[in-house]
Amino acid sequence: MRLAEIAERIGGVLLGNGDLEITGVAGIREAGASDLTFLANPRYEQYLRTTRAGAVLVAPGAPPGPAIAVQVANPYLAYVQAIKLICGNGVTPPPPGVHPTAVVAPTARLGREVSVGPHAVLEDGVVVGDRSVISALVYVGREARVGADCVLHPHVALHHRCELGDRVILKSGASVGGDGFGYVWDGRDHQKIPHLGKVVIEDDVEIGSHTAIDRGTTGETRIRRGTKLDNLVQVAHNVRVGEQSLVAAQVGISGSTELEDRVTVAGQVGLTGHIRVGEGAFLSARSGVDKNVPQGVCWYGSPARDRARALREQAGLAKLPELLRRIRALEARIRALEGREPGTGS
Amino acid sequence: MRLAEIAERIGGVLLGNGDLEITGVAGIREAGASDLTFLANPRYEQYLRTTRAGAVLVAPGAPPGPAIAVQVANPYLAYVQAIKLICGNGVTPPPPGVHPTAVVAPTARLGREVSVGPHAVLEDGVVVGDRSVISALVYVGREARVGADCVLHPHVALHHRCELGDRVILKSGASVGGDGFGYVWDGRDHQKIPHLGKVVIEDDVEIGSHTAIDRGTTGETRIRRGTKLDNLVQVAHNVRVGEQSLVAAQVGISGSTELEDRVTVAGQVGLTGHIRVGEGAFLSARSGVDKNVPQGVCWYGSPARDRARALREQAGLAKLPELLRRIRALEARIRALEGREPGTGS
Amino acid sequence: MRLAEIAERIGGVLLGNGDLEITGVAGIREAGASDLTFLANPRYEQYLRTTRAGAVLVAPGAPPGPAIAVQVANPYLAYVQAIKLICGNGVTPPPPGVHPTAVVAPTARLGREVSVGPHAVLEDGVVVGDRSVISALVYVGREARVGADCVLHPHVALHHRCELGDRVILKSGASVGGDGFGYVWDGRDHQKIPHLGKVVIEDDVEIGSHTAIDRGTTGETRIRRGTKLDNLVQVAHNVRVGEQSLVAAQVGISGSTELEDRVTVAGQVGLTGHIRVGEGAFLSARSGVDKNVPQGVCWYGSPARDRARALREQAGLAKLPELLRRIRALEARIRALEGREPGTGS
Repeated sequence: MRLAEIAERIGGVLLGNGDLEITGVAGIREAGASDLTFLANPRYEQYLRTTRAGAVLVAPGAPPGPAIAVQVANPYLAYVQAIKLICGNGVTPPPPGVHPTAVVAPTARLGREVSVGPHAVLEDGVVVGDRSVISALVYVGREARVGADCVLHPHVALHHRCELGDRVILKSGASVGGDGFGYVWDGRDHQKIPHLGKVVIEDDVEIGSHTAIDRGTTGETRIRRGTKLDNLVQVAHNVRVGEQSLVAAQVGISGSTELEDRVTVAGQVGLTGHIRVGEGAFLSARSGVDKNVPQGVCWYGSPARDRARALREQAGLAKLPELLRRIRALEARIRALEGREPGTGS
Repeated sequence: MRLAEIAERIGGVLLGNGDLEITGVAGIREAGASDLTFLANPRYEQYLRTTRAGAVLVAPGAPPGPAIAVQVANPYLAYVQAIKLICGNGVTPPPPGVHPTAVVAPTARLGREVSVGPHAVLEDGVVVGDRSVISALVYVGREARVGADCVLHPHVALHHRCELGDRVILKSGASVGGDGFGYVWDGRDHQKIPHLGKVVIEDDVEIGSHTAIDRGTTGETRIRRGTKLDNLVQVAHNVRVGEQSLVAAQVGISGSTELEDRVTVAGQVGLTGHIRVGEGAFLSARSGVDKNVPQGVCWYGSPARDRARALREQAGLAKLPELLRRIRALEARIRALEGREPGTGS
Repeated sequence: MRLAEIAERIGGVLLGNGDLEITGVAGIREAGASDLTFLANPRYEQYLRTTRAGAVLVAPGAPPGPAIAVQVANPYLAYVQAIKLICGNGVTPPPPGVHPTAVVAPTARLGREVSVGPHAVLEDGVVVGDRSVISALVYVGREARVGADCVLHPHVALHHRCELGDRVILKSGASVGGDGFGYVWDGRDHQKIPHLGKVVIEDDVEIGSHTAIDRGTTGETRIRRGTKLDNLVQVAHNVRVGEQSLVAAQVGISGSTELEDRVTVAGQVGLTGHIRVGEGAFLSARSGVDKNVPQGVCWYGSPARDRARALREQAGLAKLPELLRRIRALEARIRALEGREPGTGS
């Protein structure tokens, strides 16, 4: 595709030869003469002078470099649009149809152009919407519902009665709808609490590999529209995650906790149970959140608190050995002063 | 079921109309007119006035509300008993029998009424006890033993020679008996250490989704009777977890560490190798435990230490900026005092 | 095997009866009269006097005990060599051949003596090298390449176009080549970024259970020769891990971060994206690494910093309540001094 056409379709301003034929995309350090790349993270600005890329998407005001520049308001967003123009979305969808080795219960209902891969298992009463892909070795339990245009990657387990909206992606090994970690001590044993609820995952959600989302004890565990969960995340029973949120890898959310919309949770954060995180809050990596979080704040640390305050306290920690020295010096000087009897000399 | 009958069977005192027909159970905020609910966590006491539930299980001394009260000593335990009375345990066990697509070695021995699901694989010499359920897509390695009344959910891997007691539950994706993370540097390479041991899981244990329990290098990794592990837990080679313990999600236990009985490990805790945690100890969420823990203590922090002390130290951290100001003020005042020559005036 | 022969083949000095017949190996507390054991960790030196082992591998200078000693430079390395002599490597490789229930695309190419287990799925264009084992229920995506002498344990997913070198081990449930956690906000939605790259895993790498390694957005995610990753590790898109490194369980490495050779990352460490960890660095357990790490250092804490300094600061934290008392005392003494008017008496 000619660079001029790409520039036009992503709404960019071309500063150079629009006839360049672009055949691929790559990072700024790896890109070659017919590749398009981009600059968004200032850490990588140094590579703008040395890149071998044919063209680079930049924000207004970027320094010059050897590659043809295409100016756009948001280089990363433009790059993603350009990838789709040049390369598609990188996957070859499997052909529709049910593989002969798949085990699909007679009472399961499949929409049009559904693909069911080898050795997949769909139990009684399962419903799958149009064009959804149930990959090889996937398990879908009794009466679970999959919307349209979903992709369940290999080794996904979607347990009985759980529900997916449309365009949901479950990455390989994701487990949706296992029983929650609920026991009650009866004086002799931990008695298992029956889990009668379900998991509901709304439209346009993506769930990472080996992420586990437990069903509600009663009622639902729910992940709302447009939210993305990374790999190895734990979502306990009766949790609710709001719309358009991002939850990074290895985060753990304890039972009945609620995240409002547009919350960002960075990697390895842990949230205790029965708390609420306000709309738009940002929880920094590795924080331990043990109480309600107001809307829009940025919290950090363990226990999590205002990020600026937490950083100030940590900086104070580094000064502790010096503080100790200063206190010792003060004590010595005071002893000296106390030794001098006023009016009589020392 | 009539409320009077439920109250009687759970040993509660009915304070209102026993003729109410109860058809379901639900949380205090979701329950409707024919649902039973409960109040155990004081956080939820506010909902006692507004609940639409037909009846609520409360401890003696609870404030009044619109729903019929049933007084019990332990509302949560009573609720779980009531769930089982009203709803069963929420699962439909699969019919006994071996699915025609399962691959069961001729030398495997299955007890009575065992269920083996589609595409399950049981290798040579496997033994499965009566009434156990081997779900779809489960792998059971050579000479592994499964007791009676166990449930192995989809995508479980139980590796060669590992052993399960009776009534063990392995949630989907649990992996039991992989080789441990053991290498020895030979000056040029990390040489892999053969893992000749096994994993033994005793009666009434439940293991969460995607939890990994590695086999002993030699000897065993063992999880003792009645203990419950949540999702995404790492249990390294030769670890021993005692009876009736609870290990929450994303905990990591390093090699050869031993937990005595009735230990509670909250979420995301990490334990170093070759240590011992005393009976009844409680390790708070996200703690990093790097030495032996005495019996019965509550520890917190990283490194983990007495919880009260750790909280005091953290409170001290918040006072650091103020301490620094006070030290500066002291220094100024001492300089002023030192400037006054005693006996001569300033 | 006679002890004298073992001693000779591992290059040890026999201090006792070489005619003892050794039939097994075990830990120092479990070993019996015909077992060989070893002492490497000083914590276990106490057991040297009480062990029932027939023989024990010790370093020069070890205290005496009842078992026959075999002196070696590196007892742990010698023990591993002895295990292989006495017990082999503990696994029975499956017979070569493709199980009739495996689904192998006609365009897949398998080397000599390859084993493909029950219900494994190999898609179009897959290449598998000689003697590799594709276990039951494994998924290998289109055009993925597996080298020679690899072992893919049950429930492994190796996604399209990813590549394994020779002698690579993927433990059960490992997922290699899922899409990365990449989205760009378009003002209304998190738009998914196509992932066009791949994962390359070089020779002699071992990957733990339920570890997830995401493919590059463009370009590669790469794990270099001889490196070992434990269970439940997260490796994000475009990460590079150098040669001969060790990454313990539940570590998370964010996107585009690079580890040079011979790095050790202890359990539950988190690394932010776009940083570089220098050759030979050691990152202590549970550290949170948020910036570049120089070569050869040992860092600890969250945020991670020089280990000795971090420990000093933590020790300071424990002194905070005492510091506060000393400051209060100083303030009182200064008030007293200030009250004495110099030259006039108090």
